[in-house]
Amino acid sequence: MATAPQNLYKADLRDVMFVLFEQFKLGELLGKEPYEAWGSEEVRMVINECYRFCCEVLGPVNALGDTQGCTIENGQAKVPPCFKTAHAQLYEAGWKAVGVSPHFDGQGAPKAVYMAVEEFITGANTSLSMYPGLAHGAAELIETFGTEEQKARYCHKIFHGTWGGTMCLTEPEAGSDVGAARSKAFKNPDGTYRIEGTKLFISSGDSDMVENVIHLVLARIDGAAAGTKGLSLFIVPKLRIKEDGSCGEPNDVVLAGLEHKMGIKGSTTALLNFGENGQCIGELVGGVEHEGMKQMFMMMNGARIFVGIQGLANASSAYLNALTFCRDRKQGSSIDNFKDPNAPRVPIIQHPDVRRMLLDMKSRVEGIRALAIKLSMHQDLARVASDEKAKDHHQGQVDLLTPIVKAYGTDEAYRVCVTAMQAMGGAGYISDYGVEQYCRDSRIFTIYEGTNHIQAMDLVGRKLSQRKGANFQELVGDIAKFVAKHKEHPRLGAPVQLLAKAQETIAATAMLLFKWSQSGKLKYVDLHANRFLEMMGATTVAWLLLEAALIAEEALQNVQNDHPDRFFYEGKIQAARFFAHNNLPLVPALGAMMQTDDDSAMAIPEEAFSTI
Amino acid sequence: MATAPQNLYKADLRDVMFVLFEQFKLGELLGKEPYEAWGSEEVRMVINECYRFCCEVLGPVNALGDTQGCTIENGQAKVPPCFKTAHAQLYEAGWKAVGVSPHFDGQGAPKAVYMAVEEFITGANTSLSMYPGLAHGAAELIETFGTEEQKARYCHKIFHGTWGGTMCLTEPEAGSDVGAARSKAFKNPDGTYRIEGTKLFISSGDSDMVENVIHLVLARIDGAAAGTKGLSLFIVPKLRIKEDGSCGEPNDVVLAGLEHKMGIKGSTTALLNFGENGQCIGELVGGVEHEGMKQMFMMMNGARIFVGIQGLANASSAYLNALTFCRDRKQGSSIDNFKDPNAPRVPIIQHPDVRRMLLDMKSRVEGIRALAIKLSMHQDLARVASDEKAKDHHQGQVDLLTPIVKAYGTDEAYRVCVTAMQAMGGAGYISDYGVEQYCRDSRIFTIYEGTNHIQAMDLVGRKLSQRKGANFQELVGDIAKFVAKHKEHPRLGAPVQLLAKAQETIAATAMLLFKWSQSGKLKYVDLHANRFLEMMGATTVAWLLLEAALIAEEALQNVQNDHPDRFFYEGKIQAARFFAHNNLPLVPALGAMMQTDDDSAMAIPEEAFSTI
Repeated sequence: MATAPQNLYKADLRDVMFVLFEQFKLGELLGKEPYEAWGSEEVRMVINECYRFCCEVLGPVNALGDTQGCTIENGQAKVPPCFKTAHAQLYEAGWKAVGVSPHFDGQGAPKAVYMAVEEFITGANTSLSMYPGLAHGAAELIETFGTEEQKARYCHKIFHGTWGGTMCLTEPEAGSDVGAARSKAFKNPDGTYRIEGTKLFISSGDSDMVENVIHLVLARIDGAAAGTKGLSLFIVPKLRIKEDGSCGEPNDVVLAGLEHKMGIKGSTTALLNFGENGQCIGELVGGVEHEGMKQMFMMMNGARIFVGIQGLANASSAYLNALTFCRDRKQGSSIDNFKDPNAPRVPIIQHPDVRRMLLDMKSRVEGIRALAIKLSMHQDLARVASDEKAKDHHQGQVDLLTPIVKAYGTDEAYRVCVTAMQAMGGAGYISDYGVEQYCRDSRIFTIYEGTNHIQAMDLVGRKLSQRKGANFQELVGDIAKFVAKHKEHPRLGAPVQLLAKAQETIAATAMLLFKWSQSGKLKYVDLHANRFLEMMGATTVAWLLLEAALIAEEALQNVQNDHPDRFFYEGKIQAARFFAHNNLPLVPALGAMMQTDDDSAMAIPEEAFSTI
Repeated sequence: MATAPQNLYKADLRDVMFVLFEQFKLGELLGKEPYEAWGSEEVRMVINECYRFCCEVLGPVNALGDTQGCTIENGQAKVPPCFKTAHAQLYEAGWKAVGVSPHFDGQGAPKAVYMAVEEFITGANTSLSMYPGLAHGAAELIETFGTEEQKARYCHKIFHGTWGGTMCLTEPEAGSDVGAARSKAFKNPDGTYRIEGTKLFISSGDSDMVENVIHLVLARIDGAAAGTKGLSLFIVPKLRIKEDGSCGEPNDVVLAGLEHKMGIKGSTTALLNFGENGQCIGELVGGVEHEGMKQMFMMMNGARIFVGIQGLANASSAYLNALTFCRDRKQGSSIDNFKDPNAPRVPIIQHPDVRRMLLDMKSRVEGIRALAIKLSMHQDLARVASDEKAKDHHQGQVDLLTPIVKAYGTDEAYRVCVTAMQAMGGAGYISDYGVEQYCRDSRIFTIYEGTNHIQAMDLVGRKLSQRKGANFQELVGDIAKFVAKHKEHPRLGAPVQLLAKAQETIAATAMLLFKWSQSGKLKYVDLHANRFLEMMGATTVAWLLLEAALIAEEALQNVQNDHPDRFFYEGKIQAARFFAHNNLPLVPALGAMMQTDDDSAMAIPEEAFSTI
């Protein structure tokens, strides 16, 4: 029962291609500036080859990395030894450069393509992918906000894996409440800053796979205001950078500990002490003070989308592993002759309850994928938009969908992992089958990068009212248009009508939230924010799945009888029907709960939660 | 960041006492045959002392056992070394004998008291508790169905921890489908049987804490019918028993492997080969053939209730650990002055969303506890009932509630563990805080001892129609009576009215399920069975919580202002309100889903689930 290094990672590339090309019309973006180098064949090749690479190189060391874990030797973090070659190969093959600007020797792919690539990398090995994932985000931040000198010094080396990167926000007393950060920065005569502080839960906070780690550290310049407004962002390398760009002496960044965690055990989660000996030097990102939170938000938003993709990727592989198991595993006879003990045993995929679990997983996975790719298409469309109105619309949808992709995506992804274990019965709980690791790894996604409640508050507290509510109105309007067009559809009219009710509910509930905000009932907003996000997530995903089903129905007209696409399209239709019938009716019920003024959670005295 | 052996286990004894005495009137049973020896003081003492013992002895080795895990040396399973003393002390202190008949030197407590004791034992250390838990069940089975000789030979030694015990049902090709078992038994001239077969996933299948392990093995006597009807049950000791009752030579039971699992890592999950060398001897339980399934069901029903208690116990401790964390952890300012960066930081229990999570957990934990204790009270009342009608009623409620306690109890318990992690943020994911272990350990409860779908099919396929539907009618009738009496209650009328709708829904849905069964739509029964169980669980738990709230309201009249019970009773009221408002409205929505004839899960072709 030992775990041999073998790949368990799976993704359904046909669905990835469907979402990119048939649903979100990626083709219309390709071959034109800034994506001149990209045609549909290039995209297809990248998708196929990157997937193959991830299955061959990253996937086989996923379980092993979980077993080996991370350790500290002489103040240096040691990643799972099996990660080292895979990490190097990932960069050598160029997969981390697919989305990087050609200016830094990247391939400048559309975000939507980069998103698909990221799905494979993180799905094949979530722990390993954390190192390049954080590094990439750090480099993007420096690319966006850094001085020319900073870009030249850091970006290329981080984008191509010579150096790592991190985002250092959390402190022992400042988690969700970032503004409470106590880390300090004192200006040196040469314009650099002396950094002092402790940062906690720092993902990929140290690694022996890279020559240097470039930390992006939020700290308060001596004398600056309290709260998030007083924070500045610093580039703090683990090893100082010499004039010639090479690494020099240590920068007084001390690895004080690594956390033991439920999952992502191959990813270092570090406790870092900056400037214990007064020798930690940082430079201000872009040379500007007190802009730290704004700058960091760029990286945080990218990271939040990335976490949604992590959820999707793990859920996808958990689902497909469970599916394979349910196709192979024979148990029990068909329910049609359940009373006959001599009836032949059947694969468990024939049992209705197993099919229910499988279709539940399939619809969620494909729904989250559509949601994430939609978001990334809006990123691309915002970039290429020729007029401000279109640009604002697309950026607005990005802003609105980011907390939904992160929170709804990861909540549902975790449910998928749990369901995958359940569908596999006892095997689901056994480490050899790998699905329990997906479940453990996925459990962090709802917590880190802003808990899902932080996302919900971002949605209801900021995003709903952004652009005077236009972002939200435009999304709801798009759904309403879809409903009006398809509500009498012969095969899908019934689920479209369920969508209509859900869409009306979220519109009305947004008004209720607005009323609460205006009338000082902020506690109710906080209390119901997660519920509203769930309602919006379910409604949006149902819409996208139904849209896909209609595309599939039309495509079916032109597919030969013996073409495997017939099954694929039929699957899209049934997934949409299932999701709509089994999820949308809950949206009005949840909306009604918010109308009841139940105040129990506020009314209960703190002492009444328990007697101990 | 090393894990020092410290106790994290917590239970709210005040709630245990409330449920036993104030809600389910345990006092009325005490002091009378067969519980002459038990008064309320004795119960109180056992509850307090057993809890103290569990916190002092079992809890401190829970995390350590998880780290140490189980190994095999020379064909012998080695449990976590830290378990050995604790296991011995558990038996020395007599806590495993609380529910044992005085005939075997036990204390003969009511089932309801035994249930509370089991909550503490399994909650403090789920892995360790598996060994005595399975042993107890095996001894009870032999006590019920064994010959006098078998009882004399086995029961005392198993009940008191000298020997262990197991239930060997599952085989590589026979999990949920027990009737597919291939293990064989061949009658020897002396009346014993030669056993041959492989059993998989055997909990506490081997242990070095006991002198011998007594396996209860389902096997088919050569020539017997196919399916469950042809199975017989055998007592198969690991070491043969000599004439004088002591242990002799090995009985050809080979430990072929131990599984690596997500959780309950201190519990051996064994692969056992019986009779590889043709030398495995078993004796027929009670000396009767082909009664194996009926006999095993007695142990399985006990085990199913026990698994519900495992869920409750872990959820309770996860909740109370999260509560302690949320009372201590300061983060952010009050939402009342969220815009002021200089506002004082507050404990996170003051944040509405955290209170929501805490009250959600509290209400679920207390609801499942009430459900489990209600079941055990029916066991006691069935035992003492003087007329057949009352006995049938109480046994009927036991039968009906068993799958609900197992499946709803463990589904909700797992949700509580996940919510506890979420409420603690990053700390929830860190092993040192212990809650992630509760989450991992709890994940098996929905799978083993009959998956929760098996429970749902037991409920809809057998229990709903038992006694011509009387068990179900009596439960629904009790809820209807409660609704009629309290629907205009000034403070709790609104949630009682929600209960009314839920009760009407489950009654109507039971009719729908019946209609499906009669009209050959068995696939729909299977497809919606889990949903129906969830609806019944939520409705029953809401009823019990509202009943408790009404008792609390009345009790509040007589409690001094400064008595801590004021808070306790207020907590019961708010928990009931919260649970009702946030769960009951989903019951009619779920019921409506079952009316739609959505056939997507059946209509989708197997090939359409994925293209790979």
